[in-house]
Amino acid sequence: MTSTRLEVWPLTAEAFAPFGRVIQKKGRRPEVINRGRTLKYAGLADIQADEQGGKPVVHLYCSQPVDFPFRVEIMECHPLGSQTFMPLHNRPFLVIVAPPGGEPVTGSIRCFITDGRQGVHLAKGVWHHSQLSLGEPADYLVIERDGAGDNTVERRLRQALTVEDLEPGAAQEA
Amino acid sequence: MTSTRLEVWPLTAEAFAPFGRVIQKKGRRPEVINRGRTLKYAGLADIQADEQGGKPVVHLYCSQPVDFPFRVEIMECHPLGSQTFMPLHNRPFLVIVAPPGGEPVTGSIRCFITDGRQGVHLAKGVWHHSQLSLGEPADYLVIERDGAGDNTVERRLRQALTVEDLEPGAAQEA
Repeated sequence: MTSTRLEVWPLTAEAFAPFGRVIQKKGRRPEVINRGRTLKYAGLADIQADEQGGKPVVHLYCSQPVDFPFRVEIMECHPLGSQTFMPLHNRPFLVIVAPPGGEPVTGSIRCFITDGRQGVHLAKGVWHHSQLSLGEPADYLVIERDGAGDNTVERRLRQALTVEDLEPGAAQEA
Repeated sequence: MTSTRLEVWPLTAEAFAPFGRVIQKKGRRPEVINRGRTLKYAGLADIQADEQGGKPVVHLYCSQPVDFPFRVEIMECHPLGSQTFMPLHNRPFLVIVAPPGGEPVTGSIRCFITDGRQGVHLAKGVWHHSQLSLGEPADYLVIERDGAGDNTVERRLRQALTVEDLEPGAAQEA
């Protein structure tokens, strides 16, 4: 099986818009609540979970780091709900996604690296790779749909992609 | 206004059960997913948001630390949905709660300190104080209901309570 190189891009709200939302303070104006004691960056993601009677639930994931070069061979999507990943650590991680609908096509797959604080909210049906920590095992809070129905679809790519080793420092703590 | 002392207890799932859930790995057996690369601690909290057509949303809060001795004078509750706070840092924070229903009564108010990694999920209607960071301003991921209807009720306590300064080391990073 041949493999072509997948470039790694910095995660920004604009670049990620076709796939969902970046959970970050950047670019948002906070409300002041709790009698001046809290800044609230409101409405960073809408959890989608109610299709076919589903409900939103919270999990903790602890994910192993990737080894480079890393081959991207399988993508998955959740057609019945969104999925939100918030890092409980200060290190960047990789987010590999493709637009919802149809099949994940090699040319439409994007790889982003977070800035160490950003979380991601994947819209319903967005193709994505399973979680890709960098450097060491890392914890994430995950919000997703729980309920009846087949909410995970997996596809093997016709052509694998490879993420080469990152620039030195790219996986450092923010 | 007189004030009586409010004791601070370590946060445990058992002690917190009348108020909601502790979001932590402790005491949970993970599933292995993502072809062995991820441990999933599943179903740690059920988000309650659909009353009166509400939807779950995600916010970021940045909350100032408390000064001691700290007077507890006002409690609030959200009768239409749960509220989940996950720390995006490694320091303990305080969680002051009272059972749902009726008014927050001084004798029923409890103060817990987290272990630096724990999050909390407040069940619908549980009385609680606004967020109480320790030591320095701290970020939290918040999941709560958004939608029509009056989802915040505030009450001033008939008798204030005071949290005295913590034991040295209590507010340290986990």
